[in-house]
Amino acid sequence: MRPSGRAPDEMRAITIETGFTKHAEGSCLVGFGDTRVLVTASIEERVPPFLRGKGQGWVTGEYSMLPRATHTRGSREAAKGKQSGRTQEIQRLIGRSLRAVVDLEKLGERQIVLDCDVIQADGGTRTASISGAWVALRLAVNGLLKSGALTQDPIVSRVAAVSCGICNGVPVLDLDYIEDSNADADANFVLLDGGKIAEVQATAEGATYDEEALLRLLRLARIGCDRIFAAQDAAIGA
Amino acid sequence: MRPSGRAPDEMRAITIETGFTKHAEGSCLVGFGDTRVLVTASIEERVPPFLRGKGQGWVTGEYSMLPRATHTRGSREAAKGKQSGRTQEIQRLIGRSLRAVVDLEKLGERQIVLDCDVIQADGGTRTASISGAWVALRLAVNGLLKSGALTQDPIVSRVAAVSCGICNGVPVLDLDYIEDSNADADANFVLLDGGKIAEVQATAEGATYDEEALLRLLRLARIGCDRIFAAQDAAIGA
Amino acid sequence: MRPSGRAPDEMRAITIETGFTKHAEGSCLVGFGDTRVLVTASIEERVPPFLRGKGQGWVTGEYSMLPRATHTRGSREAAKGKQSGRTQEIQRLIGRSLRAVVDLEKLGERQIVLDCDVIQADGGTRTASISGAWVALRLAVNGLLKSGALTQDPIVSRVAAVSCGICNGVPVLDLDYIEDSNADADANFVLLDGGKIAEVQATAEGATYDEEALLRLLRLARIGCDRIFAAQDAAIGA
Amino acid sequence: MRPSGRAPDEMRAITIETGFTKHAEGSCLVGFGDTRVLVTASIEERVPPFLRGKGQGWVTGEYSMLPRATHTRGSREAAKGKQSGRTQEIQRLIGRSLRAVVDLEKLGERQIVLDCDVIQADGGTRTASISGAWVALRLAVNGLLKSGALTQDPIVSRVAAVSCGICNGVPVLDLDYIEDSNADADANFVLLDGGKIAEVQATAEGATYDEEALLRLLRLARIGCDRIFAAQDAAIGA
Amino acid sequence: MRPSGRAPDEMRAITIETGFTKHAEGSCLVGFGDTRVLVTASIEERVPPFLRGKGQGWVTGEYSMLPRATHTRGSREAAKGKQSGRTQEIQRLIGRSLRAVVDLEKLGERQIVLDCDVIQADGGTRTASISGAWVALRLAVNGLLKSGALTQDPIVSRVAAVSCGICNGVPVLDLDYIEDSNADADANFVLLDGGKIAEVQATAEGATYDEEALLRLLRLARIGCDRIFAAQDAAIGA
Amino acid sequence: MRPSGRAPDEMRAITIETGFTKHAEGSCLVGFGDTRVLVTASIEERVPPFLRGKGQGWVTGEYSMLPRATHTRGSREAAKGKQSGRTQEIQRLIGRSLRAVVDLEKLGERQIVLDCDVIQADGGTRTASISGAWVALRLAVNGLLKSGALTQDPIVSRVAAVSCGICNGVPVLDLDYIEDSNADADANFVLLDGGKIAEVQATAEGATYDEEALLRLLRLARIGCDRIFAAQDAAIGA
Repeated sequence: MRPSGRAPDEMRAITIETGFTKHAEGSCLVGFGDTRVLVTASIEERVPPFLRGKGQGWVTGEYSMLPRATHTRGSREAAKGKQSGRTQEIQRLIGRSLRAVVDLEKLGERQIVLDCDVIQADGGTRTASISGAWVALRLAVNGLLKSGALTQDPIVSRVAAVSCGICNGVPVLDLDYIEDSNADADANFVLLDGGKIAEVQATAEGATYDEEALLRLLRLARIGCDRIFAAQDAAIGA
Repeated sequence: MRPSGRAPDEMRAITIETGFTKHAEGSCLVGFGDTRVLVTASIEERVPPFLRGKGQGWVTGEYSMLPRATHTRGSREAAKGKQSGRTQEIQRLIGRSLRAVVDLEKLGERQIVLDCDVIQADGGTRTASISGAWVALRLAVNGLLKSGALTQDPIVSRVAAVSCGICNGVPVLDLDYIEDSNADADANFVLLDGGKIAEVQATAEGATYDEEALLRLLRLARIGCDRIFAAQDAAIGA
Repeated sequence: MRPSGRAPDEMRAITIETGFTKHAEGSCLVGFGDTRVLVTASIEERVPPFLRGKGQGWVTGEYSMLPRATHTRGSREAAKGKQSGRTQEIQRLIGRSLRAVVDLEKLGERQIVLDCDVIQADGGTRTASISGAWVALRLAVNGLLKSGALTQDPIVSRVAAVSCGICNGVPVLDLDYIEDSNADADANFVLLDGGKIAEVQATAEGATYDEEALLRLLRLARIGCDRIFAAQDAAIGA
Repeated sequence: MRPSGRAPDEMRAITIETGFTKHAEGSCLVGFGDTRVLVTASIEERVPPFLRGKGQGWVTGEYSMLPRATHTRGSREAAKGKQSGRTQEIQRLIGRSLRAVVDLEKLGERQIVLDCDVIQADGGTRTASISGAWVALRLAVNGLLKSGALTQDPIVSRVAAVSCGICNGVPVLDLDYIEDSNADADANFVLLDGGKIAEVQATAEGATYDEEALLRLLRLARIGCDRIFAAQDAAIGA
Repeated sequence: MRPSGRAPDEMRAITIETGFTKHAEGSCLVGFGDTRVLVTASIEERVPPFLRGKGQGWVTGEYSMLPRATHTRGSREAAKGKQSGRTQEIQRLIGRSLRAVVDLEKLGERQIVLDCDVIQADGGTRTASISGAWVALRLAVNGLLKSGALTQDPIVSRVAAVSCGICNGVPVLDLDYIEDSNADADANFVLLDGGKIAEVQATAEGATYDEEALLRLLRLARIGCDRIFAAQDAAIGA
Repeated sequence: MRPSGRAPDEMRAITIETGFTKHAEGSCLVGFGDTRVLVTASIEERVPPFLRGKGQGWVTGEYSMLPRATHTRGSREAAKGKQSGRTQEIQRLIGRSLRAVVDLEKLGERQIVLDCDVIQADGGTRTASISGAWVALRLAVNGLLKSGALTQDPIVSRVAAVSCGICNGVPVLDLDYIEDSNADADANFVLLDGGKIAEVQATAEGATYDEEALLRLLRLARIGCDRIFAAQDAAIGA
């Protein structure tokens, strides 16, 4: 029995509220249960220095937790003067995951920054961030297509992410904070349309795992991502 | 005529949604028109080093803008590795304003941190932060009173803040971004119950001002703060 | 009775020694009683990035306390690797105050940096800094006029600053350190020729204050600034 | 055909030279082909603050590239004043991988730091680091056992790591720099005795991959880790 | 002929004005010609962590240039967020030089910090700093002796420093900025009573030098330091 | 009797292994006894900003200790976020010493960076670094000459460095760690062909020294540098 009473292959409620802020070219407040992340997509008509003049665009992500997103207050990274290793690792994952579904040449010489700010944390903040970032990106690119700045759609697939883990010996989908804290193994999957894999990060926490377990977690992830794809479609009105 | 069509002494709509996040001891999403700030109050059962063993508590504030709270995306201070002078100035003002209404000895040896994170900016983010922080603080202290951790209420007054300015020669209340960008003078007032003043910061931007103008701005501030006090009362169910 | 024996509306001795250092285009050692600040004005034939090509100049300020300007030694900000919020707040105030009396277009595409380094602190370091900075600026601009680099004077007024406060219930002018540490309210006024106001920052420390008190502090500030204007005139030989 | 002429399931030459430095409690220079990493294990008779008094030890890793380990010189992170996201991500992986094979309670209240400094880089620096770190850790723990500081061996398994990837559509083992730069997918596996998995990180670079590919990469990783286990055994004289 | 018209073995005017600031336990404004450095000695009744409980004291130095001490304005190190290599090198030299004349056990468990802030620079700022620091230290220690906090004098000798160099092939004493910028070799000597050497730092700039030149510079340094010792004695009223 | 049993004027074994890494344009692993430093020379076809367009090149050095090069592990400077004063002082010395033997105009508009990373420390790491850096530089410049990028040799002399000190009253050559920790005086000499001096840094540690001692240390340094010159010649096959 899971602490939340969910079945092993059951996602928490997925909520995606688009247009949460008025300035961003795309935005949403994404919720996986009590985890809530505000994602904004900002279009900048320039690219990072290493890409200047190469005829392609860039998609990148930034991530942060508000200090009291968690049970006990964490120090503000801006006050400490540096971002933690965890923050940087998650930022890199977000950017990589979204770039996996964008044709950067079709995007043209512009950058889209996906800011993921965790308002409330209850496990799965990075996977909610990636799943919401796709919606914000989709909305921002829709604007570019509508205005004529782009004539071809650079987004080649949907992308969603979900965590799975082994808790008390049972593979389960979409861990909340209590499960995450006690899991024997913890995996994040980033999947595309048609079940293609963009990223697997599977870590033994207390006990190691075997090939069979890895496959079972992957199958749970497919179930979860199908649910997320449907929520993304609903959010963008597809 | 103001860009928003408001009368000179007219506040924007004030919205205060309490309990916006589940972990904080007190929280609200405060809105002054399109400006929206998430405020959380976190109780910590310890005080800063300079107060250890002195038999009193502390109230402090932190402030941040989400990168895309504004028209164009700003860099994340955590990524730059330091907080701007503006951020630090606002943080100091928030802490000072709230301490003006708290009897720190009655609070006991604990600290309450008021985190003000601007979700969307349209002028007046620091005054909305202070006004919302009082609500979050009130809720957090209510919890301490209810649990018996405190037996006497350390909050001695309400506190609210509002900006006023001189735009096109006319003193106006509660500037939005467009007015703020073009004001000849820009003032922030922090007021308490009964019209007592906790802080005045009045700055000439393009043109200097005189004593008469300062007084007219102060009178507008009283009108605005009365509106905010009413919204605070409604929010906490007083 | 004030600790110094001064009358409530009595300034400390104001001393302004021009030409204190030989390299700066303008400089003075300004004293308000035992508070002594070395101010230099440095002319740079370039403007900050955000002003490039806009046909105007810039005036900015920097502020620092020598480690042993105070009763007990403070850490060197360069050693700590960052400037405190207080330092940044004062720097911003100095720059803003001086820009209030300069026509930046007439200044041309150059920057004048006013460095205020506190040699000895006894209350009022920021107001002495601003008052001295005007002298250093005046001397530097005089040099530009004399050399023909400027043909029109970009300085449109004198500017001076002074602190006032309520001590033991009595409004007093130009607080020294002992008064400053115990004041119920503490205000800094930046005034121009003819009594126009550039900035008011009035903060309740222990007790809040009312409109009447604010006005009485402002009137004391006028008395003080008139004394400072006279000292500035004497210093530049006007 | 691979650029190196190796078969798809062929590792590069593995070299492990123990005792490379005289001060460390354990050390080796590990080579995977032209990739060479100096690993030292340092025993410290204290634990990080979050573990004090909890009756257990800690194992952690640090990682750095010498500036000219690579084709073109990289800036020194100490000179830039911060470690890159990549460095921090790798450090976290090294620590996690080694902790997966240590019983921290048996280790007692001490910390072992595994410093991995890349002397020369040709792909696979993180996997060589982990594989060499196990040898340095083993040697350091042997010393503790020999001296009687430990009576029970806290190391519960060998651990090794290897990269695999899909290059030109073919799954291959132990990518060198040229392959790594052009791989469609790039995976790092951390495996234990008996084929148990401690960590999988599999990232699509240009093309996404499917479950079948993931399994084929995992099987290659088993082949590689068996080779590394044998080299580890030889190095420690097992 | 030297630019200043001085003879090769002629020092610039040495001025030492004691009691320049009122808070420090010892202070002076030291001048070597146009070079002027404010030195304060601060007594702290604690020692750095590495000396706690060892029954001895510590003497250390800090050094900074005011931004406009030089011909063109330099950035403030506090604003840049770090001290330059040059600053750190000079700080270390100041501390080492003063420790060379203090019996740290006799000083007891307290620290004396010598802050050297360059008001105006014209060559020789580090040597003026050391020479002035001895005076400030002497005054601070005199206070400890007078108050009875110390019963034995921990200062075992005078210490002075001077620069020498080879300019246009001629060894000269006490280089000013013009000479320093063009010297073939530049040496700083720190000498004690009776001609004992605490430190020699002799650097070839354009041309290397030989043993004979090194000795000639050392002899000039003795002449200079005798002049400084006399000025120190006069300053402290010895 | 020295701890190592060496005669007062006896160097430790000097080893110079060239080509230690494959990417650098020049490299060696230099050993003075148990002290071992990896030096790489990297050629960059650009110069630092202050030299752009001036028709000359630049030679600079960087220095670092691996965390466990020493008896007890030191913190990684990259993790602490800044380089120590000692590191910066040594870096500046390395750069200055090598520039003393390079005609920067003949080098053309390129920079050579000499990275000195201490693998194992046993005293004399800075002198081994300089001595090895000359070899790495020589090899890198040989490559430029061979490729035709340079037609004239910009290296005008060999340069070597060695430490000398007074231990138990006896002047000795090439101090190891034990001697270095207990020396009364410690000096580093940087010498060129024919005995010309590039740099002397001689510091009294416990006892001051006199002119006679300085000369005796210099004579020992000549003996040591002759040995190093011979080892450099052997390493480059001269």
